[in-house]
Amino acid sequence: MIIPLHIIKIGGNVIDNKDLLNQFANDFASVDGLKILVHGGGKLASELSSKMGIAPQMVDGRRITDADTLDIVTMVYAGLINKKVVALLQSKNCNAIGLTGADGNIIPAHKRAVGQIDYGFVGDIDSGSLKSETLKDILKLGLVPIIAPITHDGKGQLLNTNADTIASALAVSLSRHFTVNLVYCFERDGVMRDLNNSGSLIPHINQKEYLSLKEEGVINKGMIPKMDNSFEAINKGVNSVWIGHAENLKNMIEGKENAGSKLSK
Amino acid sequence: MIIPLHIIKIGGNVIDNKDLLNQFANDFASVDGLKILVHGGGKLASELSSKMGIAPQMVDGRRITDADTLDIVTMVYAGLINKKVVALLQSKNCNAIGLTGADGNIIPAHKRAVGQIDYGFVGDIDSGSLKSETLKDILKLGLVPIIAPITHDGKGQLLNTNADTIASALAVSLSRHFTVNLVYCFERDGVMRDLNNSGSLIPHINQKEYLSLKEEGVINKGMIPKMDNSFEAINKGVNSVWIGHAENLKNMIEGKENAGSKLSK
Repeated sequence: MIIPLHIIKIGGNVIDNKDLLNQFANDFASVDGLKILVHGGGKLASELSSKMGIAPQMVDGRRITDADTLDIVTMVYAGLINKKVVALLQSKNCNAIGLTGADGNIIPAHKRAVGQIDYGFVGDIDSGSLKSETLKDILKLGLVPIIAPITHDGKGQLLNTNADTIASALAVSLSRHFTVNLVYCFERDGVMRDLNNSGSLIPHINQKEYLSLKEEGVINKGMIPKMDNSFEAINKGVNSVWIGHAENLKNMIEGKENAGSKLSK
Repeated sequence: MIIPLHIIKIGGNVIDNKDLLNQFANDFASVDGLKILVHGGGKLASELSSKMGIAPQMVDGRRITDADTLDIVTMVYAGLINKKVVALLQSKNCNAIGLTGADGNIIPAHKRAVGQIDYGFVGDIDSGSLKSETLKDILKLGLVPIIAPITHDGKGQLLNTNADTIASALAVSLSRHFTVNLVYCFERDGVMRDLNNSGSLIPHINQKEYLSLKEEGVINKGMIPKMDNSFEAINKGVNSVWIGHAENLKNMIEGKENAGSKLSK
Protein backbone atom coordinates (compact mmCIF):
# COMPACT_ATOMS: atom_id res chain seq x y z
CA MET A 1 0.00 0.00 0.00
CA ILE A 2 1.24 3.43 -0.87
CA ILE A 3 1.45 5.89 2.03
CA PRO A 4 -1.36 8.47 2.18
CA LEU A 5 -0.57 12.18 1.92
CA HIS A 6 -3.06 14.98 2.54
CA ILE A 7 -2.50 18.23 0.66
CA ILE A 8 -4.74 20.89 2.13
CA LYS A 9 -5.33 24.34 0.68
CA ILE A 10 -6.78 27.25 2.63
CA GLY A 11 -7.81 30.58 1.17
CA GLY A 12 -8.03 34.15 2.35
CA ASN A 13 -11.25 33.64 4.31
CA VAL A 14 -9.40 31.41 6.78
CA ILE A 15 -6.26 33.58 6.84
CA ASP A 16 -8.23 36.78 7.52
CA ASN A 17 -10.30 35.39 10.41
CA LYS A 18 -8.24 34.86 13.56
CA ASP A 19 -10.71 32.49 15.24
CA LEU A 20 -11.28 30.45 12.10
CA LEU A 21 -7.52 30.23 11.52
CA ASN A 22 -6.94 29.09 15.08
CA GLN A 23 -9.64 26.41 14.84
CA PHE A 24 -8.28 25.34 11.45
CA ALA A 25 -4.77 25.11 12.90
CA ASN A 26 -6.06 22.84 15.68
CA ASP A 27 -7.74 20.60 13.13
CA PHE A 28 -4.78 20.61 10.74
CA ALA A 29 -2.33 19.84 13.56
CA SER A 30 -4.49 16.86 14.56
CA VAL A 31 -4.48 15.29 11.07
CA ASP A 32 -2.52 12.04 11.33
CA GLY A 33 0.21 11.07 8.92
CA LEU A 34 1.86 13.06 6.16
CA LYS A 35 0.42 16.44 5.22
CA ILE A 36 1.20 19.65 3.37
CA LEU A 37 -0.60 22.98 3.73
CA VAL A 38 -0.85 25.46 0.85
CA HIS A 39 -2.14 28.89 1.79
CA GLY A 40 -3.46 31.78 -0.23
CA GLY A 41 -3.25 35.47 0.46
CA GLY A 42 -6.25 37.15 1.97
CA LYS A 43 -6.87 40.85 2.41
CA LEU A 44 -3.52 41.71 4.01
CA ALA A 45 -1.70 42.30 0.73
CA SER A 46 -4.34 44.75 -0.49
CA GLU A 47 -4.38 46.48 2.89
CA LEU A 48 -0.62 46.86 2.84
CA SER A 49 -0.70 48.17 -0.73
CA SER A 50 -3.19 50.87 0.14
CA LYS A 51 -1.26 51.83 3.29
CA MET A 52 1.78 52.29 1.07
CA GLY A 53 -0.22 54.23 -1.50
CA ILE A 54 0.23 51.61 -4.21
CA ALA A 55 -2.94 51.36 -6.28
CA PRO A 56 -3.78 47.84 -7.49
CA GLN A 57 -3.14 47.51 -11.22
CA MET A 58 -6.17 45.92 -12.84
CA VAL A 59 -6.67 45.05 -16.51
CA ASP A 60 -10.05 43.65 -17.56
CA GLY A 61 -10.81 42.92 -13.93
CA ARG A 62 -7.60 40.91 -13.48
CA ARG A 63 -4.99 41.96 -10.96
CA ILE A 64 -1.59 42.67 -12.47
CA THR A 65 1.55 41.88 -10.48
CA ASP A 66 3.88 44.81 -11.13
CA ALA A 67 7.26 45.02 -9.37
CA ASP A 68 5.87 46.83 -6.29
CA THR A 69 2.99 44.37 -6.00
CA LEU A 70 5.37 41.44 -6.27
CA ASP A 71 7.40 42.85 -3.35
CA ILE A 72 4.19 43.24 -1.34
CA VAL A 73 2.88 39.73 -1.99
CA THR A 74 6.33 38.29 -1.25
CA MET A 75 6.39 40.14 2.07
CA VAL A 76 2.83 39.27 3.01
CA TYR A 77 2.50 35.71 1.68
CA ALA A 78 6.03 34.36 2.23
CA GLY A 79 6.78 36.55 5.25
CA LEU A 80 3.91 37.56 7.47
CA ILE A 81 1.23 34.97 6.70
CA ASN A 82 3.55 32.00 6.18
CA LYS A 83 5.56 32.59 9.36
CA LYS A 84 2.51 33.38 11.50
CA VAL A 85 0.93 30.11 10.38
CA VAL A 86 4.18 28.23 11.01
CA ALA A 87 4.52 29.69 14.53
CA LEU A 88 0.83 28.96 15.24
CA LEU A 89 1.19 25.33 14.12
CA GLN A 90 4.43 24.93 16.07
CA SER A 91 2.51 25.99 19.19
CA LYS A 92 0.18 23.06 18.49
CA ASN A 93 3.00 20.51 18.22
CA CYS A 94 2.93 20.41 14.43
CA ASN A 95 6.52 20.61 13.14
CA ALA A 96 5.74 23.11 10.38
CA ILE A 97 8.34 24.41 7.92
CA GLY A 98 7.35 27.35 5.73
CA LEU A 99 8.45 27.29 2.11
CA THR A 100 7.92 29.04 -1.20
CA GLY A 101 8.46 27.44 -4.58
CA ALA A 102 11.94 29.01 -4.64
CA ASP A 103 13.04 27.17 -1.49
CA GLY A 104 14.78 23.97 -2.47
CA ASN A 105 13.65 24.90 -5.99
CA ILE A 106 10.53 22.87 -5.23
CA ILE A 107 8.23 24.71 -7.66
CA PRO A 108 10.02 25.99 -10.78
CA ALA A 109 7.87 28.31 -12.89
CA HIS A 110 8.15 30.78 -15.73
CA LYS A 111 6.81 34.30 -16.11
CA ARG A 112 3.49 34.13 -17.93
CA ALA A 113 3.93 35.06 -21.59
CA VAL A 114 2.54 38.45 -22.53
CA GLY A 115 -0.58 37.98 -24.65
CA GLN A 116 -3.55 40.31 -24.76
CA ILE A 117 -2.84 41.04 -21.11
CA ASP A 118 0.57 41.46 -19.50
CA TYR A 119 0.03 39.94 -16.07
CA GLY A 120 3.45 41.09 -14.90
CA PHE A 121 5.35 38.91 -12.45
CA VAL A 122 2.92 36.01 -12.47
CA GLY A 123 4.36 32.51 -12.64
CA ASP A 124 2.98 29.51 -14.48
CA ILE A 125 4.28 26.31 -12.95
CA ASP A 126 6.68 24.06 -14.88
CA SER A 127 4.73 21.00 -13.75
CA GLY A 128 7.23 18.48 -15.09
CA SER A 129 10.03 20.06 -13.07
CA LEU A 130 8.41 20.04 -9.62
CA LYS A 131 10.85 18.67 -7.04
CA SER A 132 8.62 16.03 -5.51
CA GLU A 133 11.71 14.13 -4.32
CA THR A 134 12.83 17.10 -2.21
CA LEU A 135 9.36 17.43 -0.69
CA LYS A 136 9.30 13.70 -0.04
CA ASP A 137 12.66 13.97 1.74
CA ILE A 138 11.40 16.90 3.85
CA LEU A 139 8.23 14.98 4.76
CA LYS A 140 10.38 11.98 5.73
CA LEU A 141 12.18 14.17 8.29
CA GLY A 142 8.83 14.58 10.08
CA LEU A 143 8.50 18.15 8.89
CA VAL A 144 5.18 19.56 7.63
CA PRO A 145 5.61 21.89 4.63
CA ILE A 146 3.53 25.09 4.70
CA ILE A 147 3.64 26.50 1.18
CA ALA A 148 3.19 30.19 0.28
CA PRO A 149 1.98 30.99 -3.25
CA ILE A 150 5.28 32.39 -4.53
CA THR A 151 7.43 30.58 -7.09
CA HIS A 152 10.56 31.51 -9.06
CA ASP A 153 11.94 31.17 -12.56
CA GLY A 154 15.35 29.74 -11.66
CA LYS A 155 16.99 32.92 -12.97
CA GLY A 156 16.56 34.88 -9.77
CA GLN A 157 13.03 36.17 -10.36
CA LEU A 158 10.29 35.52 -7.81
CA LEU A 159 6.79 35.09 -9.24
CA ASN A 160 3.25 35.37 -7.88
CA THR A 161 1.38 32.10 -8.43
CA ASN A 162 -2.17 31.00 -7.77
CA ALA A 163 -2.39 28.90 -4.61
CA ASP A 164 -5.09 26.56 -5.98
CA THR A 165 -2.85 25.77 -8.93
CA ILE A 166 0.12 25.17 -6.63
CA ALA A 167 -1.95 22.75 -4.55
CA SER A 168 -3.09 20.73 -7.55
CA ALA A 169 0.35 20.73 -9.20
CA LEU A 170 1.94 19.48 -5.97
CA ALA A 171 -0.81 16.86 -5.62
CA VAL A 172 -0.17 15.53 -9.12
CA SER A 173 3.60 15.51 -8.72
CA LEU A 174 3.51 13.84 -5.31
CA SER A 175 1.05 11.18 -6.46
CA ARG A 176 4.11 9.38 -7.86
CA HIS A 177 5.19 8.74 -4.28
CA PHE A 178 1.98 8.83 -2.24
CA THR A 179 -1.76 8.19 -2.35
CA VAL A 180 -2.71 11.84 -2.46
CA ASN A 181 -5.89 13.32 -1.05
CA LEU A 182 -6.27 16.98 -2.09
CA VAL A 183 -8.58 19.12 0.07
CA TYR A 184 -9.66 22.63 -0.93
CA CYS A 185 -11.00 24.53 2.05
CA PHE A 186 -12.99 27.62 1.18
CA GLU A 187 -15.84 29.76 2.48
CA ARG A 188 -18.71 27.42 1.56
CA ASP A 189 -19.75 23.90 2.47
CA GLY A 190 -18.79 22.56 -0.92
CA VAL A 191 -20.16 22.65 -4.45
CA MET A 192 -23.76 23.85 -4.12
CA ARG A 193 -26.71 23.49 -6.50
CA ASP A 194 -28.02 26.78 -5.16
CA LEU A 195 -25.74 29.22 -3.31
CA ASN A 196 -28.71 30.50 -1.34
CA ASN A 197 -29.73 27.08 -0.12
CA SER A 198 -27.36 25.55 2.42
CA GLY A 199 -29.08 22.18 1.94
CA SER A 200 -28.12 21.98 -1.72
CA LEU A 201 -24.60 20.54 -1.26
CA ILE A 202 -23.59 18.08 -3.96
CA PRO A 203 -21.67 15.47 -1.92
CA HIS A 204 -20.26 13.44 -4.85
CA ILE A 205 -19.35 14.60 -8.33
CA ASN A 206 -17.71 12.57 -11.02
CA GLN A 207 -16.27 13.98 -14.19
CA LYS A 208 -19.34 13.24 -16.31
CA GLU A 209 -21.65 14.83 -13.76
CA TYR A 210 -19.37 17.87 -13.57
CA LEU A 211 -19.56 18.40 -17.30
CA SER A 212 -23.35 18.32 -17.31
CA LEU A 213 -23.60 20.53 -14.19
CA LYS A 214 -21.33 23.01 -15.96
CA GLU A 215 -23.48 22.82 -19.10
CA GLU A 216 -26.64 23.38 -17.06
CA GLY A 217 -25.02 26.45 -15.51
CA VAL A 218 -25.40 24.96 -12.01
CA ILE A 219 -21.70 25.37 -11.19
CA ASN A 220 -21.00 29.05 -10.65
CA LYS A 221 -18.20 30.79 -12.48
CA GLY A 222 -15.82 31.16 -9.54
CA MET A 223 -15.88 27.39 -8.97
CA ILE A 224 -14.96 26.44 -12.51
CA PRO A 225 -11.17 26.98 -12.32
CA LYS A 226 -11.05 25.14 -8.96
CA MET A 227 -13.01 22.19 -10.34
CA ASP A 228 -11.15 22.10 -13.65
CA ASN A 229 -7.92 22.00 -11.62
CA SER A 230 -9.35 19.23 -9.45
CA PHE A 231 -10.44 16.95 -12.28
CA GLU A 232 -7.16 17.54 -14.09
CA ALA A 233 -5.38 16.44 -10.90
CA ILE A 234 -7.58 13.35 -10.62
CA ASN A 235 -6.89 12.43 -14.24
CA LYS A 236 -3.18 12.75 -13.54
CA GLY A 237 -3.08 10.38 -10.57
CA VAL A 238 -4.47 12.18 -7.53
CA ASN A 239 -6.63 9.76 -5.56
CA SER A 240 -9.35 12.08 -4.33
CA VAL A 241 -10.26 15.75 -4.15
CA TRP A 242 -12.52 17.35 -1.57
CA ILE A 243 -13.98 20.85 -1.75
CA GLY A 244 -15.55 22.15 1.43
CA HIS A 245 -15.54 24.50 4.38
CA ALA A 246 -12.41 24.84 6.55
CA GLU A 247 -14.56 24.04 9.58
CA ASN A 248 -15.23 20.61 8.08
CA LEU A 249 -11.58 19.70 7.52
CA LYS A 250 -11.59 16.83 9.99
CA ASN A 251 -14.77 15.34 8.54
CA MET A 252 -13.40 15.57 5.01
CA ILE A 253 -10.14 13.92 6.08
CA GLU A 254 -12.16 11.14 7.70
CA GLY A 255 -14.26 10.82 4.53
CA LYS A 256 -17.55 11.52 6.27
CA GLU A 257 -20.68 11.82 4.14
CA ASN A 258 -21.77 15.43 3.45
CA ALA A 259 -18.50 16.80 4.89
CA GLY A 260 -18.02 18.59 1.59
CA SER A 261 -18.05 17.70 -2.11
CA LYS A 262 -15.94 14.70 -3.01
CA LEU A 263 -14.73 14.66 -6.59
CA SER A 264 -13.76 11.43 -8.30
CA LYS A 265 -13.19 10.00 -11.76
CA MET B 1 37.80 13.80 10.67
CA ILE B 2 34.65 15.72 11.37
CA ILE B 3 32.99 17.31 8.33
CA PRO B 4 33.57 21.05 7.96
CA LEU B 5 30.61 23.46 7.97
CA HIS B 6 30.81 27.16 7.11
CA ILE B 7 28.28 29.45 8.80
CA ILE B 8 28.40 32.83 7.11
CA LYS B 9 26.64 35.95 8.31
CA ILE B 10 25.98 39.00 6.16
CA GLY B 11 24.65 42.31 7.37
CA GLY B 12 22.60 45.13 5.97
CA ASN B 13 25.46 46.64 3.97
CA VAL B 14 25.48 43.58 1.69
CA ILE B 15 21.67 43.30 1.56
CA ASP B 16 21.22 46.96 0.62
CA ASN B 17 23.76 47.00 -2.20
CA LYS B 18 22.57 45.10 -5.27
CA ASP B 19 26.03 44.70 -6.85
CA LEU B 20 27.69 43.68 -3.59
CA LEU B 21 24.87 41.18 -2.93
CA ASN B 22 25.22 39.70 -6.38
CA GLN B 23 28.99 39.35 -6.02
CA PHE B 24 28.53 37.88 -2.57
CA ALA B 25 25.98 35.40 -3.91
CA ASN B 26 28.48 34.27 -6.56
CA ASP B 27 31.13 33.76 -3.91
CA PHE B 28 28.77 32.06 -1.46
CA ALA B 29 27.42 29.74 -4.16
CA SER B 30 31.00 28.72 -5.03
CA VAL B 31 31.91 27.73 -1.44
CA ASP B 32 32.44 23.97 -1.44
CA GLY B 33 30.85 21.66 1.08
CA LEU B 34 28.28 22.34 3.76
CA LYS B 35 27.24 25.92 4.44
CA ILE B 36 24.58 28.04 6.09
CA LEU B 37 23.88 31.73 5.48
CA VAL B 38 22.45 33.99 8.18
CA HIS B 39 21.31 37.40 6.98
CA GLY B 40 20.47 40.60 8.78
CA GLY B 41 18.02 43.27 7.89
CA GLY B 42 19.33 46.36 6.17
CA LYS B 43 17.49 49.59 5.50
CA LEU B 44 14.38 48.05 3.93
CA ALA B 45 12.51 47.56 7.20
CA SER B 46 13.01 51.20 8.21
CA GLU B 47 12.03 52.37 4.73
CA LEU B 48 8.85 50.30 4.83
CA SER B 49 8.02 51.58 8.32
CA SER B 50 8.29 55.18 7.24
CA LYS B 51 6.25 54.53 4.06
CA MET B 52 3.54 53.13 6.32
CA GLY B 53 3.82 56.04 8.71
CA ILE B 54 5.06 53.90 11.59
CA ALA B 55 7.63 55.83 13.61
CA PRO B 56 10.47 53.73 15.01
CA GLN B 57 10.10 53.30 18.77
CA MET B 58 13.40 54.09 20.42
CA VAL B 59 14.26 53.96 24.13
CA ASP B 60 17.75 55.08 25.21
CA GLY B 61 18.89 54.74 21.61
CA ARG B 62 17.65 51.14 21.35
CA ARG B 63 15.02 50.16 18.83
CA ILE B 64 11.89 48.65 20.35
CA THR B 65 10.00 45.94 18.48
CA ASP B 66 6.33 46.78 18.99
CA ALA B 67 3.61 44.70 17.30
CA ASP B 68 3.62 46.77 14.08
CA THR B 69 7.41 46.66 13.88
CA LEU B 70 7.40 42.89 14.38
CA ASP B 71 5.00 42.54 11.43
CA ILE B 72 7.29 44.72 9.33
CA VAL B 73 10.50 42.88 10.17
CA THR B 74 8.75 39.55 9.62
CA MET B 75 7.61 40.73 6.18
CA VAL B 76 10.95 42.24 5.22
CA TYR B 77 13.42 39.77 6.76
CA ALA B 78 11.52 36.46 6.38
CA GLY B 79 9.63 37.51 3.25
CA LEU B 80 11.29 39.95 0.92
CA ILE B 81 14.98 39.66 1.79
CA ASN B 82 15.03 35.95 2.54
CA LYS B 83 13.17 34.93 -0.63
CA LYS B 84 15.09 37.32 -2.86
CA VAL B 85 18.36 35.86 -1.58
CA VAL B 86 17.03 32.31 -2.01
CA ALA B 87 15.93 33.00 -5.62
CA LEU B 88 19.28 34.69 -6.36
CA LEU B 89 21.25 31.74 -5.00
CA GLN B 90 19.02 29.26 -6.82
CA SER B 91 19.92 31.09 -10.06
CA LYS B 92 23.57 30.33 -9.22
CA ASN B 93 22.98 26.60 -8.72
CA CYS B 94 23.00 26.82 -4.95
CA ASN B 95 20.07 24.81 -3.59
CA ALA B 96 19.03 27.40 -1.02
CA ILE B 97 16.13 26.94 1.41
CA GLY B 98 14.99 29.97 3.39
CA LEU B 99 14.11 29.48 7.04
CA THR B 100 13.33 31.38 10.21
CA GLY B 101 13.84 30.02 13.69
CA ALA B 102 10.15 29.05 13.73
CA ASP B 103 10.52 26.73 10.73
CA GLY B 104 11.16 23.22 11.94
CA ASN B 105 11.38 24.87 15.39
CA ILE B 106 15.10 25.23 14.69
CA ILE B 107 15.67 28.26 16.94
CA PRO B 108 13.41 28.32 20.00
CA ALA B 109 13.56 31.61 21.90
CA HIS B 110 11.73 33.53 24.59
CA LYS B 111 10.55 37.13 24.72
CA ARG B 112 13.19 39.19 26.47
CA ALA B 113 12.18 39.88 30.06
CA VAL B 114 11.13 43.44 30.74
CA GLY B 115 13.80 45.16 32.82
CA GLN B 116 14.66 48.85 32.71
CA ILE B 117 13.72 48.73 29.03
CA ASP B 118 10.83 46.80 27.49
CA TYR B 119 12.28 45.74 24.14
CA GLY B 120 8.93 44.42 22.97
CA PHE B 121 8.87 41.37 20.71
CA VAL B 122 12.58 40.65 20.87
CA GLY B 123 13.67 37.06 21.30
CA ASP B 124 16.59 35.72 23.29
CA ILE B 125 17.63 32.32 22.02
CA ASP B 126 17.13 29.19 24.14
CA SER B 127 20.60 27.97 23.17
CA GLY B 128 20.22 24.55 24.72
CA SER B 129 17.08 23.87 22.67
CA LEU B 130 18.43 24.65 19.19
CA LYS B 131 17.44 21.89 16.75
CA SER B 132 20.89 21.14 15.37
CA GLU B 133 19.71 17.64 14.36
CA THR B 134 17.02 19.11 12.09
CA LEU B 135 19.53 21.45 10.48
CA LYS B 136 21.95 18.55 10.06
CA ASP B 137 19.21 16.54 8.34
CA ILE B 138 18.40 19.46 6.03
CA LEU B 139 22.10 19.90 5.17
CA LYS B 140 22.33 16.17 4.45
CA LEU B 141 19.61 16.56 1.79
CA GLY B 142 21.99 18.86 -0.08
CA LEU B 143 19.98 21.94 0.86
CA VAL B 144 21.63 25.19 1.94
CA PRO B 145 19.77 26.92 4.81
CA ILE B 146 19.36 30.70 4.47
CA ILE B 147 18.32 31.95 7.89
CA ALA B 148 16.32 35.14 8.55
CA PRO B 149 16.67 36.76 11.99
CA ILE B 150 13.21 35.86 13.26
CA THR B 151 12.61 33.25 15.97
CA HIS B 152 9.56 32.14 17.95
CA ASP B 153 8.61 31.23 21.49
CA GLY B 154 6.88 27.92 20.76
CA LYS B 155 3.58 29.44 21.91
CA GLY B 156 2.75 31.01 18.56
CA GLN B 157 4.67 34.27 19.00
CA LEU B 158 7.27 35.32 16.43
CA LEU B 159 10.22 37.29 17.80
CA ASN B 160 12.83 39.64 16.34
CA THR B 161 16.32 38.33 17.07
CA ASN B 162 19.80 39.67 16.39
CA ALA B 163 21.36 37.98 13.37
CA ASP B 164 24.91 37.96 14.83
CA THR B 165 23.59 36.12 17.87
CA ILE B 166 21.71 33.63 15.69
CA ALA B 167 24.89 32.93 13.71
CA SER B 168 26.99 32.28 16.82
CA ALA B 169 24.28 30.22 18.54
CA LEU B 170 23.90 28.05 15.44
CA ALA B 171 27.68 27.73 15.19
CA VAL B 172 27.96 26.53 18.79
CA SER B 173 25.05 24.11 18.48
CA LEU B 174 26.24 22.65 15.18
CA SER B 175 29.80 22.21 16.45
CA ARG B 176 28.52 18.99 18.04
CA HIS B 177 28.17 17.57 14.53
CA PHE B 178 30.67 19.53 12.42
CA THR B 179 33.96 21.39 12.47
CA VAL B 180 32.40 24.84 12.32
CA ASN B 181 33.97 27.89 10.74
CA LEU B 182 31.95 31.03 11.52
CA VAL B 183 32.43 34.00 9.19
CA TYR B 184 31.04 37.46 9.94
CA CYS B 185 30.96 39.58 6.80
CA PHE B 186 30.52 43.28 7.40
CA GLU B 187 31.42 46.64 5.91
CA ARG B 188 35.10 46.70 6.90
CA ASP B 189 38.15 44.57 6.20
CA GLY B 190 38.17 43.14 9.72
CA VAL B 191 39.12 44.32 13.18
CA MET B 192 41.18 47.49 12.69
CA ARG B 193 43.63 49.23 15.01
CA ASP B 194 42.62 52.51 13.42
CA LEU B 195 39.35 52.85 11.48
CA ASN B 196 40.91 55.60 9.36
CA ASN B 197 43.88 53.48 8.34
CA SER B 198 43.04 50.64 5.96
CA GLY B 199 46.48 49.14 6.61
CA SER B 200 45.78 48.64 10.31
CA LEU B 201 43.97 45.28 10.03
CA ILE B 202 44.67 42.91 12.90
CA PRO B 203 44.87 39.55 11.09
CA HIS B 204 44.97 37.29 14.17
CA ILE B 205 43.48 37.84 17.59
CA ASN B 206 43.41 35.42 20.46
CA GLN B 207 41.34 35.81 23.55
CA LYS B 208 44.14 37.30 25.64
CA GLU B 209 45.00 39.82 22.94
CA TYR B 210 41.32 40.72 22.62
CA LEU B 211 41.05 41.51 26.30
CA SER B 212 44.05 43.82 26.22
CA LEU B 213 42.94 45.48 22.96
CA LYS B 214 39.58 46.10 24.63
CA GLU B 215 41.30 47.52 27.70
CA GLU B 216 43.45 49.81 25.56
CA GLY B 217 40.27 51.05 23.83
CA VAL B 218 41.58 49.92 20.44
CA ILE B 219 38.46 47.86 19.69
CA ASN B 220 35.62 50.22 18.96
CA LYS B 221 32.31 49.94 20.74
CA GLY B 222 30.28 48.52 17.83
CA MET B 223 32.70 45.61 17.49
CA ILE B 224 32.52 44.50 21.12
CA PRO B 225 29.23 42.52 20.98
CA LYS B 226 30.36 40.82 17.76
CA MET B 227 33.72 39.85 19.27
CA ASP B 228 32.26 38.83 22.61
CA ASN B 229 29.85 36.57 20.68
CA SER B 230 32.75 35.19 18.66
CA PHE B 231 34.96 34.30 21.60
CA GLU B 232 32.01 32.81 23.45
CA ALA B 233 31.39 30.63 20.37
CA ILE B 234 35.06 29.60 20.25
CA ASN B 235 35.00 28.69 23.93
CA LYS B 236 31.93 26.56 23.30
CA GLY B 237 33.42 24.47 20.50
CA VAL B 238 33.43 26.54 17.31
CA ASN B 239 36.69 25.89 15.46
CA SER B 240 37.38 29.32 14.01
CA VAL B 241 35.77 32.72 13.57
CA TRP B 242 36.57 35.22 10.85
CA ILE B 243 35.50 38.85 10.76
CA GLY B 244 35.97 40.64 7.46
CA HIS B 245 34.55 42.26 4.36
CA ALA B 246 31.95 40.40 2.27
CA GLU B 247 34.20 40.94 -0.76
CA ASN B 248 36.84 38.80 0.94
CA LEU B 249 34.55 35.84 1.65
CA LYS B 250 36.43 33.46 -0.63
CA ASN B 251 39.81 34.41 0.84
CA MET B 252 38.51 33.96 4.38
CA ILE B 253 37.05 30.55 3.49
CA GLU B 254 40.42 29.57 2.01
CA GLY B 255 42.16 30.85 5.15
CA LYS B 256 44.33 33.34 3.29
CA GLU B 257 46.53 35.69 5.30
CA ASN B 258 45.09 39.21 5.73
CA ALA B 259 41.73 38.11 4.28
CA GLY B 260 40.16 39.42 7.49
CA SER B 261 40.64 39.02 11.20
CA LYS B 262 40.87 35.43 12.36
CA LEU B 263 39.87 34.86 15.96
CA SER B 264 41.12 31.87 17.91
CA LYS B 265 41.51 30.63 21.46
